[in-house]
Amino acid sequence: MAKNDWGTSTYPIVPGHEIVGIVTEVGSKVEKLKVGDRVGVGCMVGACHSCDSCDNDLENYCPKMILTYGAPYYDGTTTYGGYSDVMVAEERYVVRIPDNLPLDAGAPLLCAGITVYSPLQHFGLTKPGMHVGVVGLGGLGHVAVKFAKGFGVKVTVISTSPSKKKEAIEHLGADYFLVSRDPDQMQAAMGTMDGIIDTVSAVHPLVPLIGLLKSQGKLVMVGAPNRPLELPVFPLIMGRKVVAGSCIGGMKETQEMIDFAGKHNITADVEVIPVDYVNTAMERLEKADVRYRFVIDIGNTLKSA
Amino acid sequence: MAKNDWGTSTYPIVPGHEIVGIVTEVGSKVEKLKVGDRVGVGCMVGACHSCDSCDNDLENYCPKMILTYGAPYYDGTTTYGGYSDVMVAEERYVVRIPDNLPLDAGAPLLCAGITVYSPLQHFGLTKPGMHVGVVGLGGLGHVAVKFAKGFGVKVTVISTSPSKKKEAIEHLGADYFLVSRDPDQMQAAMGTMDGIIDTVSAVHPLVPLIGLLKSQGKLVMVGAPNRPLELPVFPLIMGRKVVAGSCIGGMKETQEMIDFAGKHNITADVEVIPVDYVNTAMERLEKADVRYRFVIDIGNTLKSA
Repeated sequence: MAKNDWGTSTYPIVPGHEIVGIVTEVGSKVEKLKVGDRVGVGCMVGACHSCDSCDNDLENYCPKMILTYGAPYYDGTTTYGGYSDVMVAEERYVVRIPDNLPLDAGAPLLCAGITVYSPLQHFGLTKPGMHVGVVGLGGLGHVAVKFAKGFGVKVTVISTSPSKKKEAIEHLGADYFLVSRDPDQMQAAMGTMDGIIDTVSAVHPLVPLIGLLKSQGKLVMVGAPNRPLELPVFPLIMGRKVVAGSCIGGMKETQEMIDFAGKHNITADVEVIPVDYVNTAMERLEKADVRYRFVIDIGNTLKSA
Repeated sequence: MAKNDWGTSTYPIVPGHEIVGIVTEVGSKVEKLKVGDRVGVGCMVGACHSCDSCDNDLENYCPKMILTYGAPYYDGTTTYGGYSDVMVAEERYVVRIPDNLPLDAGAPLLCAGITVYSPLQHFGLTKPGMHVGVVGLGGLGHVAVKFAKGFGVKVTVISTSPSKKKEAIEHLGADYFLVSRDPDQMQAAMGTMDGIIDTVSAVHPLVPLIGLLKSQGKLVMVGAPNRPLELPVFPLIMGRKVVAGSCIGGMKETQEMIDFAGKHNITADVEVIPVDYVNTAMERLEKADVRYRFVIDIGNTLKSA
């Protein structure tokens, strides 16, 4: 369940963009899927397939990328998402879920998982021995910790909430925990990180995060604050540091991500709810009262992970 | 002559950090230089030589990098720069100037040149067919245009001053010129650039520059505004775009840069002045009245390029 939708909704709308299910029917030209396969659909269901981005398996950066719900589809209809018994999708936008991954706890990987996996890969933050920071411990952050540990890097969770330390280290397997409001802790960690995945979508200061980076370190934003952040240029220059953004991932990489998750037994922590609990879930989301993703069991066929 | 010095000056001070001259004496262990060689010294004269940055020929990012003037040297003395008849420097920090490059017009390459050459190389903006923007047409910007053209990329100068168009295109060889205050021109160029070298050290908006980048484009800051800039995160995310900083270059790359300049006949545009003109030159610098660098002929031995 996405906490924030992008842009303005058009009605009628069927939301839902981290979708899992079983294939019930395939078209005559479908090659990689068959009836009975365990599959998933993420944030997008189409793109132009002729631009540089599409040619490089980066449909996610295609200017004509089609979001999974509430967007104009090729045929002019509006796309409908996963809060539905049945969904039709083009083969290119359907990934196979590894047999050992539970469908419910695997579902959020289709957006939250690829959103953090892709920048770890693209910005070269996967070499064992590296040190990666994860800012924010929510739906994105908690899977970022798991993927980073899957790659074998050292992981430090950076959070405003000291109360999350135990969870971060004992449950999620992070190596260290930094309270971002504690200047002494932050000072002691200056210049130690090869990269940081920043999942926070509230306005927050970048200076301390840039300070945590080693020379040539990379701060990758995957949460989008709705106002500009303050960017200090001098510390970027003095260390050839990078501030970048990253948005989900292409379909080829999404399949690689979920296969990697299968190999390393990486799932999201989810709370499975029936569809009639949705309004309560929305209220709890407002209070950040979920660890870490609600998954709606539309067909009443899933069990909690 | 640097327009801005970093940090606080300590006195006595001998400035000067784009320095050329002829070798008059070498130490017994010097291998790559001999008496009579045409040489130069840039922004730094020392570093720790044992950190990761130094091990990777990136002395410029060594936390113990020693600036050419006004900095504590290994032996506790203060470094003295190039406004002097004679200078002593460690071999590692001395580059050979190619025979075909005039010493005066080659001098500014030792800081301005490497400052723009290094990010073009490091951020992969050198492939023929690429399109690179250069923001600001001053000491750094004018050599950025020349190096980018040397690499064979398409170059667009982006400036607030329409009056610089003729100079940029006819004299410096830029392909296009964009007036950054003209919304129509900027709109027409949206999403067309692989990278931008931003040489402006005044506070300025990044949003339009990020908009000029293609998906996965890179905006590299080499001028350091003294206040933070506003960074919009959403457009970074939607195109996996990068904002980075870059600071001069290592000594190995500085030699490569000047060899490249020799091969492509790249020099800075300079006005050679006698030392007793310095105060007038400072006044003219304040008014940006120089194309594009003053070079002080300390020994009265240089001729204007």
